Amino acid sequence: MQNMTEAQLTDVVLQRYQDTPDPRLREILQSLIRHLHAFVRDVKLTEDEWLRGILYLTSVGQISDDKRQEMILLSDNLGISMLVNMVSARVAHAATESTVVGPFYVPGSPERQWGESIQQMPCDDPPLFVTGRVLDLDGAPVAGAQIELWQTNSNGMYDIQDPEQPEHNLRGWYRVNDAGEFLVQTVRPVRYPIPTDGPVGELLQATKRHPWRPAHLHVKITAPGCKPLVTHIFDAEDPYLDSDVVFAVKQSLVRRFEPVAAGERRREYGIGGPCLELRYDFTIERVTPAG
Amino acid sequence: MQNMTEAQLTDVVLQRYQDTPDPRLREILQSLIRHLHAFVRDVKLTEDEWLRGILYLTSVGQISDDKRQEMILLSDNLGISMLVNMVSARVAHAATESTVVGPFYVPGSPERQWGESIQQMPCDDPPLFVTGRVLDLDGAPVAGAQIELWQTNSNGMYDIQDPEQPEHNLRGWYRVNDAGEFLVQTVRPVRYPIPTDGPVGELLQATKRHPWRPAHLHVKITAPGCKPLVTHIFDAEDPYLDSDVVFAVKQSLVRRFEPVAAGERRREYGIGGPCLELRYDFTIERVTPAG
Repeated sequence: MQNMTEAQLTDVVLQRYQDTPDPRLREILQSLIRHLHAFVRDVKLTEDEWLRGILYLTSVGQISDDKRQEMILLSDNLGISMLVNMVSARVAHAATESTVVGPFYVPGSPERQWGESIQQMPCDDPPLFVTGRVLDLDGAPVAGAQIELWQTNSNGMYDIQDPEQPEHNLRGWYRVNDAGEFLVQTVRPVRYPIPTDGPVGELLQATKRHPWRPAHLHVKITAPGCKPLVTHIFDAEDPYLDSDVVFAVKQSLVRRFEPVAAGERRREYGIGGPCLELRYDFTIERVTPAG
Repeated sequence: MQNMTEAQLTDVVLQRYQDTPDPRLREILQSLIRHLHAFVRDVKLTEDEWLRGILYLTSVGQISDDKRQEMILLSDNLGISMLVNMVSARVAHAATESTVVGPFYVPGSPERQWGESIQQMPCDDPPLFVTGRVLDLDGAPVAGAQIELWQTNSNGMYDIQDPEQPEHNLRGWYRVNDAGEFLVQTVRPVRYPIPTDGPVGELLQATKRHPWRPAHLHVKITAPGCKPLVTHIFDAEDPYLDSDVVFAVKQSLVRRFEPVAAGERRREYGIGGPCLELRYDFTIERVTPAG
């Protein structure tokens, strides 16, 4: 039996993972081991510090449940989610840019009808209409597309964080018409702090970072034969665009929500009073040619 | 607002952690961010792979409770715990070597009397006596030392994994006498597989690694004014010494459990029939001079 030195240990561990049948899993695990070992060496991590880290990561898992995903939030806060988005989202230059999915996406949100509001509660805010088209890289409408949105209520909380909101409040998906057009009704999104009552909140406090995300709508677009797009629309007037706690802002995703003057357009939206609008065309990439 | 490129993101994230008041926490977090980002870049992690990793880590936290610590087990399996032990356990060359604590240590185990057995169940195995001294680097006895042991039963399970065992079975601590001597009674430890019914078991299966740890006694020695020592005693006859699943074997910690011939020594141990013995002196390091 060989006595391992600190210098040999990493090679011994890598060797032990050499028989992993799936080559991609092997590549990922061996790279992760190499980088985590380099981290331990760089900072000369002590056993007490290691144990604090272990208990911290454990608590991040333990506070997570079907409504809360603290591990994603941690990854978001370390810039990992955004980096994964950047290195993996290799889409054509002309396509709409993507950004992080975040911890608050919930599959299975309900279908909404043309122009129906996803705000399911009484609300004093003027309606916001988001309208535009889903196009492919050739500028042709993607007729089968679905556009899904989710956002917080004006109190900064998603439905799954807030027992006062009905299920699926401020969530839903719309079918586009044959011209690729959609008409979404919602309210202007607000900036909000990410949850600070768990381990990620502890991290923010210990590192003197603010918890704010700039106001945004989450958007997911799917269509048969196309790459799914997960992105945000950010409010151009938000003060936190430059310091989003999860590093998710891309310039191309920032937009103004414009007031709609009285007259024709309000009538088009079926609205008497004040409202806001955003015209936004999304461009997604076909994987298989349009049939 | 700047549009971040993939190359700039890591610097932006590091900058955001720059105001962490505790310099050691800042150093650790910034190094961790740097190395985790390098990992993501190296393997060009996809969002699907990232999500599988997130859910995996979450499940490692969720299966952990007051009796099971899967995050330590994961760290052990990636060689991280052993590396931390190696880089942080800077003790004098002459001191007994340390190794990983593992996930099965339980604080608050009961005191045992001189020569009392920590095996609290009926057992056909011959007793094993571990006897020796706790010394400082000058070879002087450390009179106030306590030696704590824990190990699995012959079925390969620790008390906290096995409802058949009474609480604290095969755990306990002994005071040394004024000459620094101790007399522990237990049974010969067995090799055992680490728990394979959770996320770490999944990892072993996916990487075609065996789950075995070579037979060992866990030992922790504490004394006023001394560095605590956490180590193992490994059985020299075990076939898994070269492939311990958690990489914890050090050559200096391997010993033979010798049969005790009939006669004087058995009488000394108060035993009529066959038994085993191990004579082992532990050397620990004083932090403050002996008073």
